[in-house]
Amino acid sequence: MNFQDKLTSIVKKNNSLVCVGLDSDISKLPERVKQHENAQSEFNKTIIDATCDLVCCYKPNSAFYESRGAKGIKELKLTCDYIRGIYPDIPIILDAKRADIGNTNKGYVQFAYEYLGVDAITLNRYLGQEAIKTFLGNPDKGAIILCKTSNLGSEEFQDLAVGEKKLYQIVAENVTNKWNDLKNCSLVVGATYPEELKIVRDIVGDMTLLVPGIGTQGGDVEKTITAGLNSQKAGLIINSSRSIIFASNEDDFAEKARKATEKLRDEINKYRV
Amino acid sequence: MNFQDKLTSIVKKNNSLVCVGLDSDISKLPERVKQHENAQSEFNKTIIDATCDLVCCYKPNSAFYESRGAKGIKELKLTCDYIRGIYPDIPIILDAKRADIGNTNKGYVQFAYEYLGVDAITLNRYLGQEAIKTFLGNPDKGAIILCKTSNLGSEEFQDLAVGEKKLYQIVAENVTNKWNDLKNCSLVVGATYPEELKIVRDIVGDMTLLVPGIGTQGGDVEKTITAGLNSQKAGLIINSSRSIIFASNEDDFAEKARKATEKLRDEINKYRV
Repeated sequence: MNFQDKLTSIVKKNNSLVCVGLDSDISKLPERVKQHENAQSEFNKTIIDATCDLVCCYKPNSAFYESRGAKGIKELKLTCDYIRGIYPDIPIILDAKRADIGNTNKGYVQFAYEYLGVDAITLNRYLGQEAIKTFLGNPDKGAIILCKTSNLGSEEFQDLAVGEKKLYQIVAENVTNKWNDLKNCSLVVGATYPEELKIVRDIVGDMTLLVPGIGTQGGDVEKTITAGLNSQKAGLIINSSRSIIFASNEDDFAEKARKATEKLRDEINKYRV
Repeated sequence: MNFQDKLTSIVKKNNSLVCVGLDSDISKLPERVKQHENAQSEFNKTIIDATCDLVCCYKPNSAFYESRGAKGIKELKLTCDYIRGIYPDIPIILDAKRADIGNTNKGYVQFAYEYLGVDAITLNRYLGQEAIKTFLGNPDKGAIILCKTSNLGSEEFQDLAVGEKKLYQIVAENVTNKWNDLKNCSLVVGATYPEELKIVRDIVGDMTLLVPGIGTQGGDVEKTITAGLNSQKAGLIINSSRSIIFASNEDDFAEKARKATEKLRDEINKYRV
């Protein structure tokens, strides 16, 4: 099943737009978990088991695994293998913000889709459509392109004026009108910029948007959901990472992660009726 | 020694602006090498030994190692360890085109500088200066930012008109005037765009430019060197990957790689007098 269909299906089943970001920085794991040989993947498995009926996807960020080199990459693979094996109806997004020239992207495609077996990847659009057609040309996999990112300072580049428009609007228009022949594109728009989220929604129609920035980064749930929902009262993947996975640093971390996920899911759903 | 000083020193010592791109796609390695347990790093070691007196740096592209998961990352590390151990005066550039929000970039910094121990990394500027200050704030390490990339279709985004200028010119201006307080920034400009290379050179003064696109991609040596040299008859890192490392697919691959490197070095140097 392709990424979008898998997502639509689990959004309905779990009645949730929540994506749990598996940014499982080893230095922040509970002490007892750290002692495990595969600390990151064991931590992730526990978080996943505790939240699997409350989410619409999981999103590991590659940086938190790459930081440990080959060992971390192995833990990332164990995590993805676990989700695919035990919860095959929950899509996995690899947050890697990749892009290179065509010949080279094949390596990243192999990493994401053959080695890890994820359903979608985040991509950077600086090199252009031609460069990333290896990703765009795969109808089963989601290509989630950075548009308006959640970070402080994202306006420096993304809000540059191109004629009457801002750069991020051009990105949204290009992806919607030119890149999305296979209906496998999505965009990243930060919850920290709800006005821009509304502008992007008006450009992209019902396209799914990946929205980080809720939680630790300070994005407001009501503003985000009301600005970003599509005509189906969905079309958003609301990511929360640290506020969920590090809700507690003690032995009750899984229980607290579940509660944080449930609370976020329910708060989001208040504005979907 | 910081990246720029290390580079300046080896450019003089080896009288070379050639960077060998270690894009060592395992499927393209000579059959005899493929049988080695650590095929990619053994291949790289042989290439490095054969070219070490002819180059100014080595540039492995992460994608060709990530494609194999943990095993490939280990081979990338073995390669970097070898260069640092045997040829410590030759800088290593990790071509990874990374960028994420601040908190997350720490993982990539650890991967590049602690785990691999490289001297510089290529970065994508879409998220803005604030996001990548973890890289920019390290005076010892080179931050090499994508400006005008060598690929077909790079104009789609990089040539967008921002007022009277093109986007890549804005990137060059911003990096030169605002990002480079620690004098650790460089830019990527493709040899396939010599006119744009000249425009960037006029913006950045003597800043070092990393120039891919010579060789298989079709960039012209004379046009590139005359357009790109700085006032010291240097300031360019001319990368060639496939044309050197895959100059032969037989047992004589090292000898042929040496000859291709020497030929490129000498051709470049014709235009540096």
